[in-house]
Amino acid sequence: MNVGIYGASGYVGGELLRLLLQHPQVTVTAAISVTYAGEYVHRLNPNLRGQTDIIFEKPNIGNITEKCDLLFTATPHGVSSTLISQIYETGIKIIDLSADFRLKNSDDYPSWYGWAHKSPELLQKAVYGLPELHRQEIRNADLIACPGCMAAGAILALAPIVRSGKIEKDRIIVDVKVGSSGAGAKPSRSSHHSEHYSTVRPYKPVGHRHTAEIEQELGLLIDDEISISMSAHAVNIVRGILTTCHTFTTDVVKISDLWRLYRGFYKDEPFIRLVRDRKGIFRYPDPKVVAGTNYCDVGFEIDDRVKRVVLLSAIDNLMKGAAGTAVQDMNILMGYDEQEGLRSLGLHPV
Amino acid sequence: MNVGIYGASGYVGGELLRLLLQHPQVTVTAAISVTYAGEYVHRLNPNLRGQTDIIFEKPNIGNITEKCDLLFTATPHGVSSTLISQIYETGIKIIDLSADFRLKNSDDYPSWYGWAHKSPELLQKAVYGLPELHRQEIRNADLIACPGCMAAGAILALAPIVRSGKIEKDRIIVDVKVGSSGAGAKPSRSSHHSEHYSTVRPYKPVGHRHTAEIEQELGLLIDDEISISMSAHAVNIVRGILTTCHTFTTDVVKISDLWRLYRGFYKDEPFIRLVRDRKGIFRYPDPKVVAGTNYCDVGFEIDDRVKRVVLLSAIDNLMKGAAGTAVQDMNILMGYDEQEGLRSLGLHPV
Amino acid sequence: MNVGIYGASGYVGGELLRLLLQHPQVTVTAAISVTYAGEYVHRLNPNLRGQTDIIFEKPNIGNITEKCDLLFTATPHGVSSTLISQIYETGIKIIDLSADFRLKNSDDYPSWYGWAHKSPELLQKAVYGLPELHRQEIRNADLIACPGCMAAGAILALAPIVRSGKIEKDRIIVDVKVGSSGAGAKPSRSSHHSEHYSTVRPYKPVGHRHTAEIEQELGLLIDDEISISMSAHAVNIVRGILTTCHTFTTDVVKISDLWRLYRGFYKDEPFIRLVRDRKGIFRYPDPKVVAGTNYCDVGFEIDDRVKRVVLLSAIDNLMKGAAGTAVQDMNILMGYDEQEGLRSLGLHPV
Amino acid sequence: MNVGIYGASGYVGGELLRLLLQHPQVTVTAAISVTYAGEYVHRLNPNLRGQTDIIFEKPNIGNITEKCDLLFTATPHGVSSTLISQIYETGIKIIDLSADFRLKNSDDYPSWYGWAHKSPELLQKAVYGLPELHRQEIRNADLIACPGCMAAGAILALAPIVRSGKIEKDRIIVDVKVGSSGAGAKPSRSSHHSEHYSTVRPYKPVGHRHTAEIEQELGLLIDDEISISMSAHAVNIVRGILTTCHTFTTDVVKISDLWRLYRGFYKDEPFIRLVRDRKGIFRYPDPKVVAGTNYCDVGFEIDDRVKRVVLLSAIDNLMKGAAGTAVQDMNILMGYDEQEGLRSLGLHPV
Repeated sequence: MNVGIYGASGYVGGELLRLLLQHPQVTVTAAISVTYAGEYVHRLNPNLRGQTDIIFEKPNIGNITEKCDLLFTATPHGVSSTLISQIYETGIKIIDLSADFRLKNSDDYPSWYGWAHKSPELLQKAVYGLPELHRQEIRNADLIACPGCMAAGAILALAPIVRSGKIEKDRIIVDVKVGSSGAGAKPSRSSHHSEHYSTVRPYKPVGHRHTAEIEQELGLLIDDEISISMSAHAVNIVRGILTTCHTFTTDVVKISDLWRLYRGFYKDEPFIRLVRDRKGIFRYPDPKVVAGTNYCDVGFEIDDRVKRVVLLSAIDNLMKGAAGTAVQDMNILMGYDEQEGLRSLGLHPV
Repeated sequence: MNVGIYGASGYVGGELLRLLLQHPQVTVTAAISVTYAGEYVHRLNPNLRGQTDIIFEKPNIGNITEKCDLLFTATPHGVSSTLISQIYETGIKIIDLSADFRLKNSDDYPSWYGWAHKSPELLQKAVYGLPELHRQEIRNADLIACPGCMAAGAILALAPIVRSGKIEKDRIIVDVKVGSSGAGAKPSRSSHHSEHYSTVRPYKPVGHRHTAEIEQELGLLIDDEISISMSAHAVNIVRGILTTCHTFTTDVVKISDLWRLYRGFYKDEPFIRLVRDRKGIFRYPDPKVVAGTNYCDVGFEIDDRVKRVVLLSAIDNLMKGAAGTAVQDMNILMGYDEQEGLRSLGLHPV
Repeated sequence: MNVGIYGASGYVGGELLRLLLQHPQVTVTAAISVTYAGEYVHRLNPNLRGQTDIIFEKPNIGNITEKCDLLFTATPHGVSSTLISQIYETGIKIIDLSADFRLKNSDDYPSWYGWAHKSPELLQKAVYGLPELHRQEIRNADLIACPGCMAAGAILALAPIVRSGKIEKDRIIVDVKVGSSGAGAKPSRSSHHSEHYSTVRPYKPVGHRHTAEIEQELGLLIDDEISISMSAHAVNIVRGILTTCHTFTTDVVKISDLWRLYRGFYKDEPFIRLVRDRKGIFRYPDPKVVAGTNYCDVGFEIDDRVKRVVLLSAIDNLMKGAAGTAVQDMNILMGYDEQEGLRSLGLHPV
Repeated sequence: MNVGIYGASGYVGGELLRLLLQHPQVTVTAAISVTYAGEYVHRLNPNLRGQTDIIFEKPNIGNITEKCDLLFTATPHGVSSTLISQIYETGIKIIDLSADFRLKNSDDYPSWYGWAHKSPELLQKAVYGLPELHRQEIRNADLIACPGCMAAGAILALAPIVRSGKIEKDRIIVDVKVGSSGAGAKPSRSSHHSEHYSTVRPYKPVGHRHTAEIEQELGLLIDDEISISMSAHAVNIVRGILTTCHTFTTDVVKISDLWRLYRGFYKDEPFIRLVRDRKGIFRYPDPKVVAGTNYCDVGFEIDDRVKRVVLLSAIDNLMKGAAGTAVQDMNILMGYDEQEGLRSLGLHPV
């Protein structure tokens, strides 16, 4: 199958290139970048040196629909919606990695993103591309909205316990620690190495936009409203998100209950690993362990004394948090083996 | 004044040496280390090269009381209580940096530390050495129990809002991110560079011992029970703790209220800075900024939508979280200028 | 084929496990560890969680020869020679990752390693397992001595120019920067995160043992003596070695000469990439780019003014510097595709 | 004394602010920044929060000469020469931290910097501000040219042995490892955290401009030409330079000779420490140890086998490599205690 990447010169685009160039059923026929058109792909992605001669090209919509059966759009928020509304009618399959089609309620765009959605009719057609919750719909989708990286981590940590109904729905804290690649490839003062190294910076203690997706998806699980209290911190790593969710139980919950709940929910999921070990130094999820993989490691712990359950997840924000899930979605959509192109293991140590 | 340090070869001991060697009113007359007796101090503390010829010496209690007017004990938990019960009667002033005299209720030791306290009578005589809460008692103390590093960060972030009575007392989340020096100088698998670099490791999601101190001290502020939900994470820095406290209001709280509350509570405190900026990349506390200083930077934010208030603090765990507060306590106790020896600024960038 | 790993619980052993578990022609039938016998492999190698149920087992030589067609020995220097002399006669193929069979002249062991070699007769039978120099001999070897990590980086950077005869043979500086995993999995003060983070530590400015291998192998290329001036520095990364070789020309050398020389030498090598770009930020080799891969990136630059040629190489010390080359050797020895099991790309960014 | 800083918003400017705000004999009367005029100094320098209310101001030459007795210029290369030629005649003392007045021979500017010097007559009046070589001239200077950071590290490592005449003058390798702050405060792709973290990047293997200063200053010591072979690498730290100098002896040199040579050369120098320990993990200079201080730690080692002497130095590029030396120069010039404002120790661990 021929696929294109629109917005190929960002970090998510580069990660898509890495995955798709190694995917046996796929040929990358277009790597589109406004900024870097004419440049070799390996100039920005040194890991691909010797693997490909692809050159970034300028956007040309006629060209795309001709050259590609499926298009990944990794464009800035607000750009995707315009672009996709132009090409949706051509019947090309689209997997969008921006936020533009994640929220079902078009009113959420003004309140969370600050702009009115230009193609609200497409919102209902878009499928929220988290396979663990929407595999069946992904199979039949024309337009898939890949989850936000922090949303993916939080939803996967929380979904089983939320659905169980055993926690307070309005006291769910999502405390996120994220690496610098989450802020993208564009240099800025806050991402300058001298400023970012050794930092533990609470860059969005309240009001993070991914909150909206998390509330939407977890709410759907119980057909009720849920409220998420989210804070995001930048830490001194490049790839990875650790999500610590603090919840309070409405009933007695034991560790064995949690094992049963999480094992049941994720029993056939190829990319979820439950991590709660009694020995060693790797007792809980850690983004260091999943870097470069499509795994979401999920763990939990009970704090009886205060009726708290802590849910933990670790993902690579560029993989399970973006490009990895996008390729997983493509595999589902096309009927390929769901793990195709996503089998490489993490490194240790690293 | 002549001071000694018992347990001088650990990281807290080394930090005490750095501070005390530069303190104009103090002479270090004993640097006691069981393990490194006979070794030059600068072999373990390369920053002190050229500053001192002190050699670590073996413990000898008779010697200590002769050579020192004041003793800092930076010994492992459980060791201090035995040691201090032996020397307390000699009238030497003691500033203990272990956990052994922090808790007032001797029953808390078996439940949080796993051993029965051997000198419970001394617990009532000990003063919890957090100047911002107990300055007056510190002035007259014989035995000061320096706060745990994470306890210091959490208490200073929470004290004003807890005392205000405006938050739920049983839904207080303390999410801690701490650097590797918090685990001490002794090598182990978890602190091995190859294992710790790039980690975001939830090493104590529930049951952290500092919880007991935090509940005790915040409870005293309102003469009521309070329950703390604490989780500790190791991150890829050496010095520093960022504490993110998530709380839920029982009443309407505005940013101006928080400013008034925190400014009022900390108005004369030399080592508290309130950090909440509207511009730039340093809008909230960050341990990177306070490394090497005795500052506790405190910030806050309101999440109206879910009635949450987020309280943030950043400290250097070896300074405000240990040696810095210990020296501040000494200054108060001896009637010196409270900032003496603690004025050096942080670096930027670093 | 059934393979065993002796010394499987170290970092090199863990990397062999990762590679071999994914290798289609190989089954790992023994993961031997004295220290961790009885422990699940994934307890030490969290990246292998969910990939294998292998448990470390105690050494038992009879067992090994029964269960394995080929044995990788990743034991400490001095241990391998004793072990291998015991099993060599059983006809099992051996790929040794220690230094014990790298040097041809048994006199070099007392002078560089401080002990007399116990099986000097095997030294002549061992093949130095650097495919780029000894592919033909590796095909027919019974015992392969994998190069030292720093030796691999230095030899691959220098071999073409040394063989060209265009540089002074006694003014070759090899300035090495290596990550913490090069020091192994065993915790120590120097590898403690608090001590190693942010360091640039010249830990072996003179006398590094890999010097002997480098002189041996480069000398063989020109059938003459060569002298290497090597200094090794520890830097704040986990995986990777950057080697900067400073040499002085005896003749006029132009960049086009170097391109011709290096392209010619490495033209069919699957794991050598020449990196010298005129644009972008990835103009020269960088270990960050090759982490997790078996590539050795090689670059060069000319300093006309002082008749200097700088040769640069970047490898992952656990891959091309150890386990990767060992698997490449196995592929050659067994007649498999040389790249089998070694195709995964590096990550960017990381 | 009233001092101004022109170019106060860069990292060197920020470091000057930190030092000068704490200097008892100095008042900062102007912090000039074209880009950040109107902004609080602590917005860019969070370590100065609570220490000062200074606001960056626009440049105004009339103003400067009125408000300042001494001006530090920390402007980009090429800017300083124009600026200083305008204010030199006003008699204000100037300490320039750019490269514009470091080289004595105006022909060196076109060849190393690519532009012709506009005030060549001032080059002879400028004093190269390395106190260890030019203390006497600094005392009487009107215009001081602070050394480049890499030049300072290399010259201090090499000066004693070069002057001794015991090494080959044309085989001196200077292999530099430098932190990200050396590249300044302006964000760029190469300094982006995701790209710079974990890097060991040979960014200038040949042709680094500081070579010219090093050759000039070392040549002056022996009144002869000397040639330096320099390569610069970016490493994953913020502050600090480790310089490894590889030299070859023309005569027998023993360790005791080096001790005598270096002790003699630096015997009264307050900011040089000789570091060569036989035990522990801090045997040689390491930039981690001197971060935030004005120390240059110098060490050495002999490689008898190949007649090599390795000279090592570690500095903080913003301190001894820039602002620290500038303040030291000011102290000498003004007759203050040479260590005033420069006494703070490094941290350990950090």
